[in-house]
Amino acid sequence: MRALRFEDNRLRLADVGVPARAGEALVRVRLAGVCNTDLEIVRGYAGFQGTLGHEFVGEVLSAPGASELVGRRVVGEINAGCGTCELCRAGDARHCPARTVLGIAGRDGAFAEFLQLPVINLLPVPDEVADERAVFTEPLAAACAVTERVEFETGARAVVIGDGKLGLLCAQALTVLTKATVTLIGRHESKLGVARRRGIETLKAGELTRDHERSFDVAIEASGSKTGFAAALRLLRPRGTLVLKSTFHGTTELNAAPVVVDEIAIVGSRCGRFAPALELLRRDAVDVESFIQDEFALDEGVRALERAAEPGVLKVLIRP
Amino acid sequence: MRALRFEDNRLRLADVGVPARAGEALVRVRLAGVCNTDLEIVRGYAGFQGTLGHEFVGEVLSAPGASELVGRRVVGEINAGCGTCELCRAGDARHCPARTVLGIAGRDGAFAEFLQLPVINLLPVPDEVADERAVFTEPLAAACAVTERVEFETGARAVVIGDGKLGLLCAQALTVLTKATVTLIGRHESKLGVARRRGIETLKAGELTRDHERSFDVAIEASGSKTGFAAALRLLRPRGTLVLKSTFHGTTELNAAPVVVDEIAIVGSRCGRFAPALELLRRDAVDVESFIQDEFALDEGVRALERAAEPGVLKVLIRP
Repeated sequence: MRALRFEDNRLRLADVGVPARAGEALVRVRLAGVCNTDLEIVRGYAGFQGTLGHEFVGEVLSAPGASELVGRRVVGEINAGCGTCELCRAGDARHCPARTVLGIAGRDGAFAEFLQLPVINLLPVPDEVADERAVFTEPLAAACAVTERVEFETGARAVVIGDGKLGLLCAQALTVLTKATVTLIGRHESKLGVARRRGIETLKAGELTRDHERSFDVAIEASGSKTGFAAALRLLRPRGTLVLKSTFHGTTELNAAPVVVDEIAIVGSRCGRFAPALELLRRDAVDVESFIQDEFALDEGVRALERAAEPGVLKVLIRP
Repeated sequence: MRALRFEDNRLRLADVGVPARAGEALVRVRLAGVCNTDLEIVRGYAGFQGTLGHEFVGEVLSAPGASELVGRRVVGEINAGCGTCELCRAGDARHCPARTVLGIAGRDGAFAEFLQLPVINLLPVPDEVADERAVFTEPLAAACAVTERVEFETGARAVVIGDGKLGLLCAQALTVLTKATVTLIGRHESKLGVARRRGIETLKAGELTRDHERSFDVAIEASGSKTGFAAALRLLRPRGTLVLKSTFHGTTELNAAPVVVDEIAIVGSRCGRFAPALELLRRDAVDVESFIQDEFALDEGVRALERAAEPGVLKVLIRP
């Protein structure tokens, strides 16, 4: 089968065997999405080698011990735990130290004709959720996961920094899932418009004034930039919470003094559970279609990633 | 009166007027303690100019509207809020944006014959707590404040990094106030001995093995060093909490990726409430006397700070 692989520091389309790990489901990929993490991997993040891609919707071809899934349209949680450690037994494969992660760590990904995942990772997609929406389940789950890490009180003021895909999803998810008032800060009028159409207050980065400083209870850094991190600190009230969503490659300068003096909490947040995200998609509670800017055949996968890396581009899809 | 002042980038003993701010209590300083923050200020932290010192026990000479305090031995909370903002009205002068801080920001401190604080900041010291113990109320309150920021479940594994004053106080406070098991990591056999005598498990930094990595629920960074920060991250389990206690001058490199991937929470913690700390001192629940390594007259204040800056020195006291 064809697969878009990152190996020896090079991205290329390759012909590889269909995966055949015993005991796992085999899925035909219907549609996959390019994530910033894919681009970071190509820049050296995580040291992954193999088939890229972790956002997908597919059709189950075989599912050992779960024949009812065969033929179903599914999405799949990307962390596959060892199944036996303390964390896995508590249902948290996302932090299993021996986990593999689809297209990110130790497991070939979704930019391919077929992929494998444990049966337990698969969730059927409701018929009313088209492939073009279902493919957003993984990033939307990551956005919803902010609520696992921070409690939002009624009327809390939340600010999301960054109007890329992740920022737009976080702003929408928090608006739907919490009773906080949400402000999205970005640089692109067209992207901020997506949020505004869902009733979210938006601000251009240049419109920030001193009145905005120290005025938010929670700031979500979703820009992946060092300036976003510093901006988030400035916007938080004392004892406010900064949620780090982006996994950018490299380090940022942390001036610990203001974090200590203002008693800020900096909270990392990564993958989320798929079920709540699928439910938001089923209810049409978030706009994801507006993100889609381009679609490529798998054969054009290298071009797809180039296109996704262009400044200002939101979602690029790959159809095997 | 004499006062040890940091002005124009120089530390010197000066003759200044007795403070006479209307409406505040006047306190004769009986004994003061040198804190690392004093040393950081002399290195440029916080840009403070004026009389240093914020750890003290004194005697009230006058107290407008609180004559029952006159003649009493007191300690004093160091943050003086505006009294009218939202935070102050909620009882949190510690984060009032217009606050002054004794010997740290906008308010002359305790390395002097006399100081002033609002009456509301003063707490009488029980007779059974000698000056040499009462002078530790402020740093002990800061150690106790960790429990305001993190919940410690029964059996939680906490690690304190740094066997300086702050680390020793944090390790003791957490042992007494929580049901966590506490491990203190340091470099000095004699200091670790102080903790061991209070039943706390200790480890030399060089004794850390791979088994310790990712094994603690909470890590308290009290070493003030960049390596301490990195070590704390390595020791935490996924979704663990790193408490930043030290206000060191300068920045540290933060590699955001592991914070996001392991969903670590980094929590700043600063000043604490005095009442619980005084109660621990009254109950003799913590050892602070062992910290005292030297005492200087106020006239020798410059030497006192030099002594406190020597490697490995714990508490140096100044007696006006």
